[in-house]
Amino acid sequence: MASALKLHGSPISTATMRVLAGLHEKGLEFEFSPVDMSIGAHKLQPYLSLNPFGLVPALEDGSLKLFESRAITTHLAHSYADKGNQLILPGKERAALLVWQEVEAHQFEPIAVKLLWELFYKPMFGLEADPSVVKENEDKLAKVLDVYEARLGQSKYLAGEQYTLADMHHLPAVSLLSGTQVKKLFDTRPCVAAWAAVILARPAWAKVQALRNAPQQ
Amino acid sequence: MASALKLHGSPISTATMRVLAGLHEKGLEFEFSPVDMSIGAHKLQPYLSLNPFGLVPALEDGSLKLFESRAITTHLAHSYADKGNQLILPGKERAALLVWQEVEAHQFEPIAVKLLWELFYKPMFGLEADPSVVKENEDKLAKVLDVYEARLGQSKYLAGEQYTLADMHHLPAVSLLSGTQVKKLFDTRPCVAAWAAVILARPAWAKVQALRNAPQQ
Ligand SMILES: N[C@@H](CCC(=O)N[C@@H](CS)C(=O)NCC(=O)O)C(=O)O
Ligand SMILES: N[C@@H](CCC(=O)N[C@@H](CS)C(=O)NCC(=O)O)C(=O)O
Repeated sequence: MASALKLHGSPISTATMRVLAGLHEKGLEFEFSPVDMSIGAHKLQPYLSLNPFGLVPALEDGSLKLFESRAITTHLAHSYADKGNQLILPGKERAALLVWQEVEAHQFEPIAVKLLWELFYKPMFGLEADPSVVKENEDKLAKVLDVYEARLGQSKYLAGEQYTLADMHHLPAVSLLSGTQVKKLFDTRPCVAAWAAVILARPAWAKVQALRNAPQQ
Repeated sequence: MASALKLHGSPISTATMRVLAGLHEKGLEFEFSPVDMSIGAHKLQPYLSLNPFGLVPALEDGSLKLFESRAITTHLAHSYADKGNQLILPGKERAALLVWQEVEAHQFEPIAVKLLWELFYKPMFGLEADPSVVKENEDKLAKVLDVYEARLGQSKYLAGEQYTLADMHHLPAVSLLSGTQVKKLFDTRPCVAAWAAVILARPAWAKVQALRNAPQQ
């Protein structure tokens, strides 16, 4: 029988990795369907019927079709609440989870994406990083991480004492940036450094890394 | 007795308007505390203890402190589910709501923000728009709105047949861009034009507009 959950994406896409982390945290069985971005398969049918914006990833969950990585992880966390690790918080604690999920999306990610492009993807494609863009975004990230340092001095994880979606959504960028000069921005902030180490050590994340490092078709 | 809900922000901030729309949709009483951004009050204490990133808005809900406009509206929609208009969807329909909330945040807003800066805020501050930035982002917005046109040909609202957070989160940008040359991008797409007209006509939105047009302290 075909798996009810089918993830379409690319193992080198940060948004795909985010969803993979969620699937593994919830201990869900799924089929992974690689989208060949090198030939632009994500800009063509049949993929466009899964995500009309032509971006990876997309998830089929039975008859439901979802896209946007954070919509997918939030869907999995709620719809499979009884499976695997809890990634959401009940009651009053939900407010902090909502806030820090939005912080990742609006304060952290736009800067992280620019640094990843300069320092991870450009070198991968044989292009040179632009030092002024790197400098500008390192300075911005440093300010954001100062706020994280204060927050993580008060609680083990961003939303409180439990690992949640808010932490998990950071994993792809924190992982890839840790392999670049940006690592120093994490390392020089003790609470951020400890948090990064703890989230990077999640068994679910090791499984995502294994897929990324596997030979691609 | 002081109101339990206290919104800190600026009536000309799109993120503040988003939250105001949510408060009015839910029919909630609240106190509005203007943050004087012209003197940089949002970058100083006591405001930084409400939002350490120094951005408006922030909400106090009893002892809870929240920031990030979409975290606040989502909190209000869930915590006051029994008040005012429903802005969320139950069960299977929740997936579509999650997807289209993320589309607003990641596909629509980054482009809309750039156009608003060029065509609304720059003229307000006596600066000139950069035609090449306008052109580039109009082209991008046109592509995004083509996807919206297809979607809104299938359902009255983005997440389905009910008005939700996914529609509401668009209101500040749709409203302000409708006063600029970008209006043509809405008008030339019949389903988008009809949707824009319907959401702009929400009584809750009229109340937000009234505050924006009121003389500022
Ligand atoms: N906000 C989206 C972002 C999706 C996205 O940008 N995916 C990238 C890969 S990480 C992509 O498909 N890029 C191809 C392109 O831009 O054409 C999400 O979280 O799913
Ligand atoms: N993602 C945030 C954005 C908040 C934001 O950027 N607010 C603007 C006004 S709309 C602001 O405070 N700008 C002042 C600044 O950038 O210093 C939210 O949705 O609340």
